[in-house]
Amino acid sequence: MYLTQPLHRALQQYPDRAATIDGARQRTFREHVERVARLAGGLRSLGVQPGDRVAMMGRNSDSYLEYLMAVPWADAVLVPVNTRWSEIEVVDSLIDSEVEILLVDDAYVETGVAIQARCPGLRHVIHVGSGDHPEQWIDYETLLADSAPVEDARRSGDALAALFYTGGTTGRAKGVMLSHANLVTSALGCAATGFWTTPNGRFLHSAPMFHLADLCLWAAHSLAGNTHVIVPGFDARRVLDTVEEHRVTDLFLVPTMIQMLIDHPSFGDHDLSSLKRFNYGASPISPEVLDRTLRLFPDVELGQAYGMTELSPVATLLDPETHRSGTSRRFSAGRAAPHSEVRVVDVDGVDMPLGEVGEIVSRGGHVMLGYWKQPEATAAVLRDGWMHTGDAGYLDDEGYLFVVDRIKDMIVTGGENVYSAEVEKALYGHPAVESCAVVGMPDQTYGERVHAVVVLRPGATATADELRAHVKTLLAGYKAPRSVDFVDALPMSGAGKILKRRLRRTTATNGA
Amino acid sequence: MYLTQPLHRALQQYPDRAATIDGARQRTFREHVERVARLAGGLRSLGVQPGDRVAMMGRNSDSYLEYLMAVPWADAVLVPVNTRWSEIEVVDSLIDSEVEILLVDDAYVETGVAIQARCPGLRHVIHVGSGDHPEQWIDYETLLADSAPVEDARRSGDALAALFYTGGTTGRAKGVMLSHANLVTSALGCAATGFWTTPNGRFLHSAPMFHLADLCLWAAHSLAGNTHVIVPGFDARRVLDTVEEHRVTDLFLVPTMIQMLIDHPSFGDHDLSSLKRFNYGASPISPEVLDRTLRLFPDVELGQAYGMTELSPVATLLDPETHRSGTSRRFSAGRAAPHSEVRVVDVDGVDMPLGEVGEIVSRGGHVMLGYWKQPEATAAVLRDGWMHTGDAGYLDDEGYLFVVDRIKDMIVTGGENVYSAEVEKALYGHPAVESCAVVGMPDQTYGERVHAVVVLRPGATATADELRAHVKTLLAGYKAPRSVDFVDALPMSGAGKILKRRLRRTTATNGA
Repeated sequence: MYLTQPLHRALQQYPDRAATIDGARQRTFREHVERVARLAGGLRSLGVQPGDRVAMMGRNSDSYLEYLMAVPWADAVLVPVNTRWSEIEVVDSLIDSEVEILLVDDAYVETGVAIQARCPGLRHVIHVGSGDHPEQWIDYETLLADSAPVEDARRSGDALAALFYTGGTTGRAKGVMLSHANLVTSALGCAATGFWTTPNGRFLHSAPMFHLADLCLWAAHSLAGNTHVIVPGFDARRVLDTVEEHRVTDLFLVPTMIQMLIDHPSFGDHDLSSLKRFNYGASPISPEVLDRTLRLFPDVELGQAYGMTELSPVATLLDPETHRSGTSRRFSAGRAAPHSEVRVVDVDGVDMPLGEVGEIVSRGGHVMLGYWKQPEATAAVLRDGWMHTGDAGYLDDEGYLFVVDRIKDMIVTGGENVYSAEVEKALYGHPAVESCAVVGMPDQTYGERVHAVVVLRPGATATADELRAHVKTLLAGYKAPRSVDFVDALPMSGAGKILKRRLRRTTATNGA
Repeated sequence: MYLTQPLHRALQQYPDRAATIDGARQRTFREHVERVARLAGGLRSLGVQPGDRVAMMGRNSDSYLEYLMAVPWADAVLVPVNTRWSEIEVVDSLIDSEVEILLVDDAYVETGVAIQARCPGLRHVIHVGSGDHPEQWIDYETLLADSAPVEDARRSGDALAALFYTGGTTGRAKGVMLSHANLVTSALGCAATGFWTTPNGRFLHSAPMFHLADLCLWAAHSLAGNTHVIVPGFDARRVLDTVEEHRVTDLFLVPTMIQMLIDHPSFGDHDLSSLKRFNYGASPISPEVLDRTLRLFPDVELGQAYGMTELSPVATLLDPETHRSGTSRRFSAGRAAPHSEVRVVDVDGVDMPLGEVGEIVSRGGHVMLGYWKQPEATAAVLRDGWMHTGDAGYLDDEGYLFVVDRIKDMIVTGGENVYSAEVEKALYGHPAVESCAVVGMPDQTYGERVHAVVVLRPGATATADELRAHVKTLLAGYKAPRSVDFVDALPMSGAGKILKRRLRRTTATNGA
């Protein structure tokens, strides 16, 4: 079980099939593998040893895919950089992982220069693209042209294949260590469902390649013999154009992207008849978007994945039939994937009764090796082989998993559990509420009290009492916020998540 | 990746679906898992510790499936006994693997008594069935009734899960050590093709459960959520009846069994419309049987697997489309499976050019841990992660593998390689030849010479010169046998394989 294994099979079985399509540039698997082997040789010539970490910061491209394969081909370790992170977060992760070689594309030359100045351990920067760059940087195409292809150097499937940094919004960033076997297990498990990939199809990489999800998708679609069509990043118009031009069969999107596609003014002008599969993840789909998607694409199969980086990343899958079932299960996270086991447990690791909320845990060959150089953080989440996701959820009587919240966003007030997501959903139902966040605040009487931070719509008004009364029409009384702050804006992370930790701190400091 | 993982998913997702159907007896997954957990508890009560070996000798049954799951559930090691072996071979394998507990069904009580007398290390024999048995044996159902179910004790996916003894016909029997991950990898790889299993179908276990193939099929069909329908062993009429009665969707057969099914006088009387899939292995299918099968079952998908016990057991798969392609590739062994890499190499491990014969090697998560207590034998076949199959074959330009012979049956004569299978095929084309075997004999001039041992048809006559002349009309002169022995019968193994090793020895002793 190695990440590079599908390349060998492709070379043996369909060397002349298109491997990558990036704009006007197409390469066959024969050409792709040749370039991967040359890049691996180039990395070797720059002193990369087995187990060394090699980072890349860039938008999606065929070169990015070459990086994702050449590093394991050289038996080194991938460190794809999240381009949405702040410079300081990126620098911290590169220093933490002791990266000596960084690839940077045209879009990140300026950032690359700044990072290099702050990472003394960085020996070489390789520039991918045709734009200007500092003189001492190495040109990617020149490196490939000057390097001889090397043999695939991979050793054991249990060797470290990649470090994905995660959790920048909730504390010190952690490097998730994934082995080759971890990644291939998730991909094989998805493929084994029969509904995840279209054999001999064309998969569009529109979600960021620096996310683990894309690497898992790379592997799953490569197992299916698929061509990789690449756009620099998600842009609804560009995705629509590319699907039409290259007869794309398979998409992976987050629900917001699906909505942007079907909402796009030019949507109706495109021939999208090649599409066979929409897979999505990261969040459940809204009823409205799901219904429109099903109507607009009566023959397209929808699949959803739930998981996290630490699970390589797939724990559960929701199949196409359930998406079209009309039942509430279509908004669940699906069921344990073929490679995965999933349970919902209490704090002692005991199974919760069906329908009752607890922490979601998963076990199998897809569970990470651990956090890089953070044994305590690893021990906190990996117990008896079970990855503790920190997500709260419940199971129904046929194993469908419903994710309700993050465990740490659960509020315990007067002995009752309140899930902030539930209260937020109720608040969003009030016409004056533009956005909101619900957190637990220390309380002498109740242990914690339910506290809401609310942004009102421009021109709208509502008092704390009105909002409380509104919530009580929908939920049990103890779930209604005991205190409400009105603010102009909520603190957000670069990835668009509300920073609840900061919210708690600010609120506590203000004494509100 | 554990063998027992599908049981947990079944219990969570479809506990009331039929797990096993054995004659008139049906059990749901809830009942099946309960019995597995009880049997594991029973084994524990008999002193079975993690890693201990537990053997079974029996025909196919739902109890056999319980044994196959309860032993890994107790974190012990399976040693399924090949019932076709001689008593002495079985005793040798049980002593070699230090088995202390043996399960025996009604069909093997007598053998079990004899084995027990010769295996002093055997502490307990458990009797499965309703027939007579020695008083000191433990009754299977009583053990289950008296034992409390225990938790699944499995630890690591890399732990030893099973020992399968192999190679009794070619020297000292070797215990092939397979891990949980080995077995699940092969199963996931088969499932990932999309053509190997019918989701939510019914699989008929008609090939022997003591073969590794059945355990891999158990796992693959369990990943697909399938019900296991069980017959004691292959019997054409019984298989036809069972398919009809239980609406079986998936079969695994060897080609001879397919032929016996379609040749059976009652074939036309059965409603076989539930069948969706015929998978087969062990040998290629003959053109005549393939063509008839395709005609008789226009909607059935055919799949073939090639591999060996040491590959858990699947290395390559031939898909349904190729079976119906009309090309010569339908008689190939297919292409590297999703989990597997396959090459054809010379004695130095260098790839042979396409179309040229060399040794077939395979690499991936499905490659065995090694041979039990035989590190030299392991080192001889496992090099740089590649399992050397001992099979000779070649690849075509799209990765289709053609298996031509066993490497050790290759004759090197005057510097030329001759594959015995090729010469045997030519000899079979002569009307007087009933059966034959071709071996290499030491020769002062040529190093080895091509030697044929022939059984003539009753009443037919042919001289060595006539046969030699016949072969020369079909093959290069150096491939024609330089010497021919005429015998009444060829020495055969219990499994119906010609014992070439014995043939060489006999011939050499005779000085023929």
